[in-house]
Amino acid sequence: MPTGRRRPVTGEAAPGSDQRHVMGRPRAADRTPAILEAATDLLGEVGYDRLRIQDVADRAGAGLATLYRRWPTKQALVADAISHYTEGLLVPVQDDPMADLSALYRAMIDKMGGKGGEVLPGLISALRMEPELAEVVRNRVIAPLRERELANLSRVLGADNPFLDSLVDCVPALALFRTVVLGEVVTTDEFLRKMLDLIATLAPV
Amino acid sequence: MPTGRRRPVTGEAAPGSDQRHVMGRPRAADRTPAILEAATDLLGEVGYDRLRIQDVADRAGAGLATLYRRWPTKQALVADAISHYTEGLLVPVQDDPMADLSALYRAMIDKMGGKGGEVLPGLISALRMEPELAEVVRNRVIAPLRERELANLSRVLGADNPFLDSLVDCVPALALFRTVVLGEVVTTDEFLRKMLDLIATLAPV
Repeated sequence: MPTGRRRPVTGEAAPGSDQRHVMGRPRAADRTPAILEAATDLLGEVGYDRLRIQDVADRAGAGLATLYRRWPTKQALVADAISHYTEGLLVPVQDDPMADLSALYRAMIDKMGGKGGEVLPGLISALRMEPELAEVVRNRVIAPLRERELANLSRVLGADNPFLDSLVDCVPALALFRTVVLGEVVTTDEFLRKMLDLIATLAPV
Repeated sequence: MPTGRRRPVTGEAAPGSDQRHVMGRPRAADRTPAILEAATDLLGEVGYDRLRIQDVADRAGAGLATLYRRWPTKQALVADAISHYTEGLLVPVQDDPMADLSALYRAMIDKMGGKGGEVLPGLISALRMEPELAEVVRNRVIAPLRERELANLSRVLGADNPFLDSLVDCVPALALFRTVVLGEVVTTDEFLRKMLDLIATLAPV
């Protein structure tokens, strides 16, 4: 039974090893990406409640001790898996505000479709049941994305546009709603074109 | 372990009883509302995976046999609980399209806050894990609400408004996103006023 409490790091690391090095460039057989991807896949397949670290280890071909050394709790593992899954969403900012907004939205929508549509329900449920996980995911993954979205929207609409508050979150919220609530497959190009048309209409002329 | 398979109706109903009568007006001590409310509460507290029919029976002060006679599966019970929770959302249509749209949105947002914010994550996870439940909830609860929203929006914006497609779902999607993803408490009045301002701006003059 998961207790929701943080397990202490067990100190099983081999003598002389420094776990921080695992965070840097991988050694020859760094299983980190495989482990995080296995965790994301399993979160989508079985949900957070039924996700077992042993199953993640098995799927990634890694030892259970290796996982527990690095991620003492399921929360810690899932938080890293979500971070890993959303890496690359903060696409570099260029000169054209509308193009930047479009690129960010495209990256978001693409992540929410496909595997995202499978992962999100389990993640949303986990955010509700595990407040510590929710805080980490909101601070580390969601807040930077939302900040970037707001910055891009401000450049398109003007920082004092009265609709800024209503439009921020609209695209990710709609992509989420249509995917997980309505069960639709969102077609990125069409959806994005319509949303950008709407935003452009609300921009000052 | 839940298998996700539909349990057959067990045929435990008392001889001569007709289950359809239970669907009509309640007899003296009809526990149906209490059972459905207990199921909704528990869905919010423990999520779909850990929801046990025995716990619903205990909380509602009803017998397990009574529940199984009426709801042979957890899916069936949760589908009815969600229907019950969202009853009354289809507020009567009046003469003023904007007032009708506002009343519908207000009802939706109110249901998504409070207990709704607790129930939705578990429900979303259940929609993903239980396709049969998803189909029933989408057809019976979500589709009629969305149809009404689209009808109300069409009256405000005109049936050929190019933004109709982008605006439908916006209010419930944002309320959901801010509640379950961002973990915010949505203030109905302020949120609704801003969204209706935005919609009014896109209406033909």
